[in-house]
Amino acid sequence: MKRPAVVLVALAIGAFCAGQFALADEEAVPYPENFRAWSHVKSGVIGPQHANFSSMGGIHHVYANPRAMDGYRTRQFPEGSVIVFEWLEWAEKNGSIEEGPRRQVDVMVKDSQRYASTGGWGFQRFVKDSKTELAASPTPQQCFACHDKLKVDGLVLSKYRE
Amino acid sequence: MKRPAVVLVALAIGAFCAGQFALADEEAVPYPENFRAWSHVKSGVIGPQHANFSSMGGIHHVYANPRAMDGYRTRQFPEGSVIVFEWLEWAEKNGSIEEGPRRQVDVMVKDSQRYASTGGWGFQRFVKDSKTELAASPTPQQCFACHDKLKVDGLVLSKYRE
Repeated sequence: MKRPAVVLVALAIGAFCAGQFALADEEAVPYPENFRAWSHVKSGVIGPQHANFSSMGGIHHVYANPRAMDGYRTRQFPEGSVIVFEWLEWAEKNGSIEEGPRRQVDVMVKDSQRYASTGGWGFQRFVKDSKTELAASPTPQQCFACHDKLKVDGLVLSKYRE
Repeated sequence: MKRPAVVLVALAIGAFCAGQFALADEEAVPYPENFRAWSHVKSGVIGPQHANFSSMGGIHHVYANPRAMDGYRTRQFPEGSVIVFEWLEWAEKNGSIEEGPRRQVDVMVKDSQRYASTGGWGFQRFVKDSKTELAASPTPQQCFACHDKLKVDGLVLSKYRE
């Protein structure tokens, strides 16, 4: 009678773990495949005079998928909106600042049900060019807290530049 | 008999002028309507340390229409390719460089027949936000001369950043 009990316990543990992973998968923000082909919202640069140059220096771009572009126009971001904040490292030569290696890719996905606890938006930071490696910080909750504090409509800080 | 002769001369002059304008229209590079919705190829910045900061300082972006995007992938730019080089003025605050007002919009259009004399590409610079005001210089011939001197494949200097 021992073996079936062990099997049952193993099955129970397995089911528990599968449940945990399933939950994690449901909450995971997917990598924004092909985001470079989306609309370019705007860009900015953090230069050497900036207080956070060492961690943020370089050119950064904001991209939006078609649904998010509707949101930029109306400031009501529909479900399925995805916004990418791409950070490129500082690369300068004789006053010409170029696009350096990718530092990180920040993603916001609008899904009011799935991300109800973070204002209806899922947040995630991907490291460098990796589509799977996630930054330890900021956590999605930390991303949300900062966006929420700024109280910009729809939690989206950027505006589209015509 | 005088009147018909005057009319004929007037018609001839009219036809000549119409021909001149038609020729000019044929060679004119149209304003790239809605280019901000095209693909974003790359960006760069001319900073205060640059020798040409006064005339070129600021963020600039390169955009490409779908045909030009095929060209960026193959480096063979098909007919109908349009590439836009948008120049925004320098705007900086505490080391954060932002997108300033639009300085100019440079356009390249691939049409091997129409622009045979400038390497198969039509060139034009539009002033600030205007869709009709053309810069006195560089002329399309000057644009071509400089692009041609650099001998980059297809006369397109930029490369697509994946």
